[in-house]
Amino acid sequence: MARVVVDVMLKPEILDPQGQAIAGACPRLGFEGIGQVRQGKRFEVEVEGEVDDAKIADVRRLAETLLANTVIEDFRVHVEA
Amino acid sequence: MARVVVDVMLKPEILDPQGQAIAGACPRLGFEGIGQVRQGKRFEVEVEGEVDDAKIADVRRLAETLLANTVIEDFRVHVEA
Repeated sequence: MARVVVDVMLKPEILDPQGQAIAGACPRLGFEGIGQVRQGKRFEVEVEGEVDDAKIADVRRLAETLLANTVIEDFRVHVEA
Repeated sequence: MARVVVDVMLKPEILDPQGQAIAGACPRLGFEGIGQVRQGKRFEVEVEGEVDDAKIADVRRLAETLLANTVIEDFRVHVEA
């Protein structure tokens, strides 16, 4: 089984209240020099056999269909060793 | 501003019902050859200035304190260009 990773993040123009809450808490917790924080989702998808272009295209289609809301989210598909 | 990424995933021994629900839906949606699916969180943290060991250690401490529940989750800190 090989592992393909799908990273799903809100589009830059979309407000990220969770990320803002984290960034806002940093100074209170003693973390200086932290700018913007964005929170998203990470999916690790195991695929059978070798990862070829067809399998990557399948996972991309899975991301578009099920893993990301493409109206407000961007996603990136990559293979991790 | 440089960007440091924190990937937070459930520990392997912890049940991942969301990932199982996705894996279970794949055959119904026409996706064959998909094995296990694990869902986690991805944080993009902007830090001021250059990313040096001290900044990485800061983000690591932030992950331990705020971003991950280290009882059931593992996290990985890495710099993305």
